[in-house]
Amino acid sequence: MALTPEQLAEIEAQRATPRPTLRAVSEGMESHLYRAHTVLDHGFVRVIDYMGDDSAIVQAARVSYGAGTKHVQDDAGLIRYLMRHWHSTPFEMCEVKLHVKLPIFVARQWIRHRTANVNEYSARYSVMDREFYIPAPEHLAAQSTINNQGRGAVLTGEEAARVLEWLKTDAARCYDHYHDMLSQDGQQGLARELARMNLPTNIYTQWYWKVDLHNLFHFLRLRADAHAQYEIRVYADVICKLVADWVPLAFGAFEDYRMGGATLSAKALECLRKMLAGQAVTQESSGMSRGEWREFQAVLATSDT
Amino acid sequence: MALTPEQLAEIEAQRATPRPTLRAVSEGMESHLYRAHTVLDHGFVRVIDYMGDDSAIVQAARVSYGAGTKHVQDDAGLIRYLMRHWHSTPFEMCEVKLHVKLPIFVARQWIRHRTANVNEYSARYSVMDREFYIPAPEHLAAQSTINNQGRGAVLTGEEAARVLEWLKTDAARCYDHYHDMLSQDGQQGLARELARMNLPTNIYTQWYWKVDLHNLFHFLRLRADAHAQYEIRVYADVICKLVADWVPLAFGAFEDYRMGGATLSAKALECLRKMLAGQAVTQESSGMSRGEWREFQAVLATSDT
Amino acid sequence: MALTPEQLAEIEAQRATPRPTLRAVSEGMESHLYRAHTVLDHGFVRVIDYMGDDSAIVQAARVSYGAGTKHVQDDAGLIRYLMRHWHSTPFEMCEVKLHVKLPIFVARQWIRHRTANVNEYSARYSVMDREFYIPAPEHLAAQSTINNQGRGAVLTGEEAARVLEWLKTDAARCYDHYHDMLSQDGQQGLARELARMNLPTNIYTQWYWKVDLHNLFHFLRLRADAHAQYEIRVYADVICKLVADWVPLAFGAFEDYRMGGATLSAKALECLRKMLAGQAVTQESSGMSRGEWREFQAVLATSDT
Amino acid sequence: MALTPEQLAEIEAQRATPRPTLRAVSEGMESHLYRAHTVLDHGFVRVIDYMGDDSAIVQAARVSYGAGTKHVQDDAGLIRYLMRHWHSTPFEMCEVKLHVKLPIFVARQWIRHRTANVNEYSARYSVMDREFYIPAPEHLAAQSTINNQGRGAVLTGEEAARVLEWLKTDAARCYDHYHDMLSQDGQQGLARELARMNLPTNIYTQWYWKVDLHNLFHFLRLRADAHAQYEIRVYADVICKLVADWVPLAFGAFEDYRMGGATLSAKALECLRKMLAGQAVTQESSGMSRGEWREFQAVLATSDT
Repeated sequence: MALTPEQLAEIEAQRATPRPTLRAVSEGMESHLYRAHTVLDHGFVRVIDYMGDDSAIVQAARVSYGAGTKHVQDDAGLIRYLMRHWHSTPFEMCEVKLHVKLPIFVARQWIRHRTANVNEYSARYSVMDREFYIPAPEHLAAQSTINNQGRGAVLTGEEAARVLEWLKTDAARCYDHYHDMLSQDGQQGLARELARMNLPTNIYTQWYWKVDLHNLFHFLRLRADAHAQYEIRVYADVICKLVADWVPLAFGAFEDYRMGGATLSAKALECLRKMLAGQAVTQESSGMSRGEWREFQAVLATSDT
Repeated sequence: MALTPEQLAEIEAQRATPRPTLRAVSEGMESHLYRAHTVLDHGFVRVIDYMGDDSAIVQAARVSYGAGTKHVQDDAGLIRYLMRHWHSTPFEMCEVKLHVKLPIFVARQWIRHRTANVNEYSARYSVMDREFYIPAPEHLAAQSTINNQGRGAVLTGEEAARVLEWLKTDAARCYDHYHDMLSQDGQQGLARELARMNLPTNIYTQWYWKVDLHNLFHFLRLRADAHAQYEIRVYADVICKLVADWVPLAFGAFEDYRMGGATLSAKALECLRKMLAGQAVTQESSGMSRGEWREFQAVLATSDT
Repeated sequence: MALTPEQLAEIEAQRATPRPTLRAVSEGMESHLYRAHTVLDHGFVRVIDYMGDDSAIVQAARVSYGAGTKHVQDDAGLIRYLMRHWHSTPFEMCEVKLHVKLPIFVARQWIRHRTANVNEYSARYSVMDREFYIPAPEHLAAQSTINNQGRGAVLTGEEAARVLEWLKTDAARCYDHYHDMLSQDGQQGLARELARMNLPTNIYTQWYWKVDLHNLFHFLRLRADAHAQYEIRVYADVICKLVADWVPLAFGAFEDYRMGGATLSAKALECLRKMLAGQAVTQESSGMSRGEWREFQAVLATSDT
Repeated sequence: MALTPEQLAEIEAQRATPRPTLRAVSEGMESHLYRAHTVLDHGFVRVIDYMGDDSAIVQAARVSYGAGTKHVQDDAGLIRYLMRHWHSTPFEMCEVKLHVKLPIFVARQWIRHRTANVNEYSARYSVMDREFYIPAPEHLAAQSTINNQGRGAVLTGEEAARVLEWLKTDAARCYDHYHDMLSQDGQQGLARELARMNLPTNIYTQWYWKVDLHNLFHFLRLRADAHAQYEIRVYADVICKLVADWVPLAFGAFEDYRMGGATLSAKALECLRKMLAGQAVTQESSGMSRGEWREFQAVLATSDT
């Protein structure tokens, strides 16, 4: 359970006092504000604030394109047009602020998305909580034998048990020593900025993360993708649901053009034209490498999830 | 007059319908929403949306510093501490979206601040309005004889009259030809993306500009400064007033530490220590250049505005 | 002619003195250094400096992926893999600095690409040169009747002559008055920062523009595209040639996956699968809008330039 | 020892083959290229590439300010002027690429500087090396009792021995288990992307880090500061030395105006004017908080390092 009774009470208090505003309001997002959506064993995602809604995207586009947008009949059509033609600035007019609790090794992937604002809990100032990510047995996967950065079958039997035991006891021992190094009971107590180095990267940290919708979509395209590491993908999946409630038209366009779409190379398009004309094409005649050909076949064969 | 009756009616309609929200609300900013603050002869600044308030800055800082912030007694003290020690990320947690109408030569300075989101009216899609910035007589200044990028005395007499006449008639003629080139009345009509090149840079454009508070303060420090060009400074001055109503504690700290403060070099500090110890210091003995010494004297002599 | 004899002499002097370096060197780029590639009637692009080459991309990728990159047989294969899977950071390891002379209305489009460093000639400090972009007759196009931001047929006859005459005489008159306002001959002389507002946006400015290869590719994908305005596309085309000589492997991958490729939506992929299975698909049954369907047909019908 | 004989041989090979270039060359930086500067117990900083030198800063400024820069007599004076007046873009025209090996807890601070390009060794693709930061006894400091994020006296005796023993044995045990989880000897072998979570944050990672000089100065001002954590400050100190050899004029200006300078608030300047006029000022009469007053006194009392 990620939240204490005190935290739940605080969230309810924040939700109890609506105030009038003249700003754009997204009903879908209001229903999520402050509430914690649990992720992994101790993590969560909470919406702290947001700016704008689907109309704000349309409004910004109409400022840019003026009378030029009048022929697009409705907001949904305009938003789909903007997404299809890679117009990024209207989507930048929406902004969201999330409170996220996540393991450090996930945070290290996440922070690589530079176009965002972050306030992270500082282990120089404060003591870390004793909470570690321990994978559920069904997520304890072997190294993929075909993909250098992927997972294969789930570990079983003694190997699985041994791994879980190590993850738990190593984390516990490291934290115990962290705690004992900091102690000022009968000793000086090591500086927090030093003691923290003894903690493993599955310990949970937390941060406020603020990002505009365009950059959030970029994050989600990479991190909600089937090839992303499971432990960050579950955060991206939760955020997808929040965004779907916040800006349903923009999220629909994003799903169709980005998540469900595919980019084909000049070579792949040439193949496709031949295939549609009834010609046979092979990897050899395509000019593609084996890897490219395999990926091209995958795009054509089956519905992308 | 910058606004038509239709625009005023639209603003009143937007202001007439408050809706409940659970987000942070700044009463001071709500009073400004959508209203146009006139700048120069045809320009304006309007607040379209905002995220956060003084409390949001404090809240983000407390996430970062945890128990480490408890010794700071109140929000004002914490915000002043953050500003004094160049902590930028808590201020990034606030965001504002403005609608600005401004001459192109001002927009070209403004856009150099890259960390912001912009949707500008496009003269490829739409026809520009016939509105030009013509300086008021008291702002028609001569080139400074001592500062390469500054202004000197106000022009007078025939010279002033001649300049104003040229500015007005050249703008009018360029716009007339722009209009006539576009016309499809008895001719093909030049492409908008080409015709616009005939317009002078004192024509008004407009944009939505969205920026976080940290980067806005950086903009204001440079553009509300006495050395900024008058035509952008008046926009910065209006925005200062809006920010003072939005986040009064943060703006107070900004005024004290940034706008009213000064940065002294190692050499200048060394001089200061000598002067406080009763020693005489001259430009020669200071190791400063003439320009540096003059600026140093100015900091010490008089209250900075 | 864009360059004076003095400028040509200066370029030759810069090119006359090679010095030894231990850094990565791109022979292809060395041949371009400092030389001006003419664009439009008075513009140019010059390479001032560069960092890295194809090997630098590979080297950075191997730092990231370590032993994981060993199975890719050669540099070209690895670079194509990185481009195909949207790995952006290895391409960011190359950097280029260009000196560009361009009309202000082109500069205003260009500057919207924010992830770059810019030093522009300042009309507050210095006097602008008397050089304006006047389109060649074959580029004097009418407004497109089907595309809000496009061009149609070339103007002819009296209309073309009238437009050219206006562009020339308006620019000349505006510049004459600019010059006369600045004059300190028998008058005070208007401040440069004010006088510049009388200049039309087809006057030439210049800047140093420094950008990493990833962001440069993003710029080129948008601005070397057939839908980009001709006057910026010619700059992008020249830069494409420079990049092809600088990092030939990366540029080849860019051409195949970005310039020559296309992104298909989930709906379009579904159609494609049906078509390859021999089923008939129409716009109605596709779920696409008329615009989407037209673009989809265009991708399938013909080789994209 | 941070480098293997193989690495040293590779560095010597890279340094053995100078090639001619027409680009700006900094002799000072050439002498550092590829060589590893040892930091902490296993870390290093190596210059991989650079763009520009002091002249490149001057050259970019002269493009911007044109004839306006002619009155500044020499390059040093112009660079000092640019630094003093917060002109950032000319300094952005220089770029450097470093190869850095550093503990993860240091990397997590470092990465918060977002305006840079990074390629980090990926523990999803590859296996981490068995190298951990263990502080030297003289850097094993107690928590400061007055500064929430600072260090106090050095630990001594049994407490110091106990801390060092824990740091060493916990790191060793975590790594042993990491290694054993990955093993495919008689078992499936855990996925690398999961096993890495068992490693403590004092393990060494490495990355290529590319940044422009303006943003590097910002990094150095914060991280070479006396209040920065020792373990990142030693990296900043090494980089300061490299920059001093690369762009000596710019680094000199940086030392005088940034590292050795101080920013005073409006209140502090008011106090100073009174003090110079011979009036007594106290904390109470200054309007400053106790913390501000203490910092103000520190600036006046002693030479800042």
